[in-house]
Amino acid sequence: MSLRDEIFEQPVVARRLLDEAHEPIERIAADVQARDVDHVVIAARGTSDHAAIYAQYLFGVLLRLPVALAVPSVLSLYGAEPRFRRALVVGISQSGVSPDVVGIVEAGRRQGVPTVAITNDPASALAAAAEHVVDLRAGPELAVAATKTYTAELMAVAMLGSALADGPGRAAELAVVPAAMEEALRTEEAAAGAAADHAGMRSCTVLGRGFDYATAREWALKLKELTHVLADPYSAADFLHGPLALVEPGFPVLALAPSGRASADLVALLERLVRDHEVDLLVASDREEIRALGRWSLALPAGLPEWLTPLVSILPAQLFALHLTRARGLDTEAPRHIAKVTRTH
Amino acid sequence: MSLRDEIFEQPVVARRLLDEAHEPIERIAADVQARDVDHVVIAARGTSDHAAIYAQYLFGVLLRLPVALAVPSVLSLYGAEPRFRRALVVGISQSGVSPDVVGIVEAGRRQGVPTVAITNDPASALAAAAEHVVDLRAGPELAVAATKTYTAELMAVAMLGSALADGPGRAAELAVVPAAMEEALRTEEAAAGAAADHAGMRSCTVLGRGFDYATAREWALKLKELTHVLADPYSAADFLHGPLALVEPGFPVLALAPSGRASADLVALLERLVRDHEVDLLVASDREEIRALGRWSLALPAGLPEWLTPLVSILPAQLFALHLTRARGLDTEAPRHIAKVTRTH
Repeated sequence: MSLRDEIFEQPVVARRLLDEAHEPIERIAADVQARDVDHVVIAARGTSDHAAIYAQYLFGVLLRLPVALAVPSVLSLYGAEPRFRRALVVGISQSGVSPDVVGIVEAGRRQGVPTVAITNDPASALAAAAEHVVDLRAGPELAVAATKTYTAELMAVAMLGSALADGPGRAAELAVVPAAMEEALRTEEAAAGAAADHAGMRSCTVLGRGFDYATAREWALKLKELTHVLADPYSAADFLHGPLALVEPGFPVLALAPSGRASADLVALLERLVRDHEVDLLVASDREEIRALGRWSLALPAGLPEWLTPLVSILPAQLFALHLTRARGLDTEAPRHIAKVTRTH
Repeated sequence: MSLRDEIFEQPVVARRLLDEAHEPIERIAADVQARDVDHVVIAARGTSDHAAIYAQYLFGVLLRLPVALAVPSVLSLYGAEPRFRRALVVGISQSGVSPDVVGIVEAGRRQGVPTVAITNDPASALAAAAEHVVDLRAGPELAVAATKTYTAELMAVAMLGSALADGPGRAAELAVVPAAMEEALRTEEAAAGAAADHAGMRSCTVLGRGFDYATAREWALKLKELTHVLADPYSAADFLHGPLALVEPGFPVLALAPSGRASADLVALLERLVRDHEVDLLVASDREEIRALGRWSLALPAGLPEWLTPLVSILPAQLFALHLTRARGLDTEAPRHIAKVTRTH
């Protein structure tokens, strides 16, 4: 299994999770709903932190719940165990071994609040620590850069949010994701072309807004890990608070701009960046007129509900990162310096 | 008032806030303690977001409270008003005008939970929205890059955390901050020397850990705004999850490494970066043996309790950014493209 194989395996992994995790997640949701939860705390690091950011938006929008991203070092460095009085505590980790993430979930379990582990290893320390486990069933992920476990984490978060929201129609929307992923993978040729053109890039900004802010973060991390490009992710809103000063003619800007409520703000920023600052824009969108803003573009599938776009829009971004890695003559399977599993305390 | 004047005004601003805001903050704390709060939600953008990150660590360590950084767009873009059942809702904004930050505080006020505005304009929309106001009393800040209002925000957070924690001795520790700031400003010559040496820098990583992760974020933002360096901030823990792949011999790494519980992890990473990857290290620390790791170093005052280090360690970082701006022939007062007040929705 190569990185490319794992990228192309994502529709199969998503379909398997939809089929096999539906019942367990419904049971978890029923248990959480029976308890008095007024906010959510999520512990995660690296790529999984971006699944946690997706959960911040999703649980905020679907459930109107405040979601805190845990600061594991408050416990691991300073020994201050958070008091989880009415929290749902979630740990997200592909490997399930990071001691600081496990520590937060253990604290929640000890305090008797509902705890959920989302992990690709149901025999991991994280799974053992949590009351409930969502097994990602993604199969072994061998490439150091996480791809299929990331979208599996997003799918688990989407399924859990959907089950907790208890509304009709969301299951049917979720069922569309694997086919949309297959369609998104058809961008490979365009992604490879854009990558070849960006082979000399040293730095860039990656923009997203709303749900796809998580995708901007994850795209930037893939670029750093795999291609050594200093990719700086921003929400369009935060970008105006300072980082806009960085741009100059020709500066590479990568943007995720699918249809939806986040679109207007972001498109206005992209138009300004192209018109006033002459940046070099690569844009992923389902809408042709938005794609036309970029010198390069990647076509996202049309018709996907906005809350599910991050599960699909990361795929062309992964393909761009894969082909940029190759275009730069770097190793796609084992980026320099970094390990697959990082045990941060 | 120039940017440099505002940087040097920080000890005076901190002393004024300690004197004049003590009583109001004690009253706010008493009111919050009388209500049933099990977590905190903070809305902020840009520089103020870094004061919110400091509050995540501080309230976590002193009060063992989970702290969520609000995702204002959940409300402003998606129309989903968070349900703040037992939250303390805090808005932090120098100008107090950003509609999305105001919107979160208004929602909390409407729902009857305690709300606090931390702002430099007690006549602002944010102040009007909140039940309680901490007036930063920093005087007009004219430079586009925020400096004195940032440390005033940190001081307000520290005073509020201290008042809520109700423990002895913290007021005496807080009283030391203005003098420590004065001492930190004595690094100007060293900061100017390091800046001149880094005049050609295009990108860098900024590392912090624990409380000073907020400082790493703020230092990086100042560098982006003022000097157009693509500065990428990381906690030492997250840096191992991917971004480590970026480093190569001579890559500039700026680090905040004061004494304290976060020190061991970070120093181990810095040693590895210097020894194995031959990075070009500029390090700020109170300890000489840590400073000796860097090709350049900035001396932080000794003896400051770890929970207060961010109020002081940002000052040498601001001076470095100021002098790097000058060394690159750029405008310290009005960075290109960006406005002092950003009205994000």
